[in-house]
Amino acid sequence: MSTLDETRYFSPTASDASALPARVTLVGAGPGDPELLTVKAAKALAAARLVLYDKLVSKDVLRLVNPQADLIYVGKQSGHHTMRQEEIVELMIRLAKSGRSVLRLKGGDPYIFGRGGEEAQALAAAGIEFDVVPGISAAQGMGAYAGIPLTHRDHAAQVVFATGHLREDSGGAHTLDLDWPSLARPRQTVVIYMGVASVGVICTQLARHGLPEDTPAALVENATLATQRTVAGTLRTLPTLARTHAVRTPALLVIGGVVALREQLAPPVSLPLAAAA
Amino acid sequence: MSTLDETRYFSPTASDASALPARVTLVGAGPGDPELLTVKAAKALAAARLVLYDKLVSKDVLRLVNPQADLIYVGKQSGHHTMRQEEIVELMIRLAKSGRSVLRLKGGDPYIFGRGGEEAQALAAAGIEFDVVPGISAAQGMGAYAGIPLTHRDHAAQVVFATGHLREDSGGAHTLDLDWPSLARPRQTVVIYMGVASVGVICTQLARHGLPEDTPAALVENATLATQRTVAGTLRTLPTLARTHAVRTPALLVIGGVVALREQLAPPVSLPLAAAA
Repeated sequence: MSTLDETRYFSPTASDASALPARVTLVGAGPGDPELLTVKAAKALAAARLVLYDKLVSKDVLRLVNPQADLIYVGKQSGHHTMRQEEIVELMIRLAKSGRSVLRLKGGDPYIFGRGGEEAQALAAAGIEFDVVPGISAAQGMGAYAGIPLTHRDHAAQVVFATGHLREDSGGAHTLDLDWPSLARPRQTVVIYMGVASVGVICTQLARHGLPEDTPAALVENATLATQRTVAGTLRTLPTLARTHAVRTPALLVIGGVVALREQLAPPVSLPLAAAA
Repeated sequence: MSTLDETRYFSPTASDASALPARVTLVGAGPGDPELLTVKAAKALAAARLVLYDKLVSKDVLRLVNPQADLIYVGKQSGHHTMRQEEIVELMIRLAKSGRSVLRLKGGDPYIFGRGGEEAQALAAAGIEFDVVPGISAAQGMGAYAGIPLTHRDHAAQVVFATGHLREDSGGAHTLDLDWPSLARPRQTVVIYMGVASVGVICTQLARHGLPEDTPAALVENATLATQRTVAGTLRTLPTLARTHAVRTPALLVIGGVVALREQLAPPVSLPLAAAA
């Protein structure tokens, strides 16, 4: 397995020129624990020849890639992008057109905040065949490993996933574009991906839009990994707790009555750091 | 592998009386395609001694259970329950206390409309150790196999899962208890589990609460199985299309701009039955 500088790939050699263009498989890598890969994803990794992977793919998952495969890191890092989304798509299409089958590996599920939809559209437009292999999304891994059921007859009739990623507007300011009226509803679990930086704004806005301030809320850092850590409180207390305990990305923010169930349901191994305040 | 009448299990023999009570593992069986089991779930099935499984677990998944294991069907069927929820929990606890390790197998993800939360609480209250193995939820399988990304920068900043299951109220009438204001929002994908019987009510109510009548909507029957079938239209046309094409349960109802992407993204093998009307 060799990790390559992507520039070496801009004039690749076709492995099977008779089957041009080759196929692209968008694969969900799950939340981190490699045991949470689907069987289909694990087989695809073991058979891969060329893998383009993102930042949120865990090292343990990458260890399951075919040792003969070439790996290209195309992840983004907050602030400075390693490769822009358009460049990733262009590279993927170029490789496929040259006859190289591509395994495009994304954290979680490619169709839940993975931009898999946009990549699939670009492949379709370029006439390249593709498959999509779903993955356990971070929210699901968090639920199982932190003891927080996403739905529950007594607490949550529905669950909503949104993202707390701050967008840079045309003036360079960072804004959060969330639909507060739909998120601040009773009997609902809200999971915000990438919610660490904006936990203060989110808790304040949800309370302002009608959720009780004592609604249970938690941040779960590194869900499903050995380093998983839960910091739990309420809409009122969580922003301060997050600072006190220096919660870092990647972390999920989860809000709703189900969060309180972790006191009963969290596996002993998860060693929750902070109790509900 | 033997499928047992559950009554034979009310006085089971302990397999290892020194480790009482035994452990229960709540396992998500995924949406149907056995390749969508997680590696962890597939290993648990292969090692299982005793499996309690639900109606929505596919036959192909059951084939992966250890051939030496005993299987007990505890699924519910609409109208007449094979075993009430309380009886399932009681059986599970009784078996674990007698020293038999139990694999509790549920369709999809145990913590998304699987009542896994309630079962985990009952186990915790009874002092029985348990694990939870998440599974690919039906919505995710549907997304990947029917070409409908659940989120998308241009169409859906968030995704919400709810259930269209009709509840019988105290007077015996069937009602649908959905939070229309949170579901009828723009730039959101709505997935309703068990949405066939109530598709008419749901489409009408979403339009009444503000979603445009031409919002794309689809029913996906038997998602991820060889028999998968998609019937797509809009809030206005889908209820009639569902009757015309006799869509049957299990099926997911999916609503939002992302539904229209299936025309580009649906894998050719899925043979969509009805085009958008």
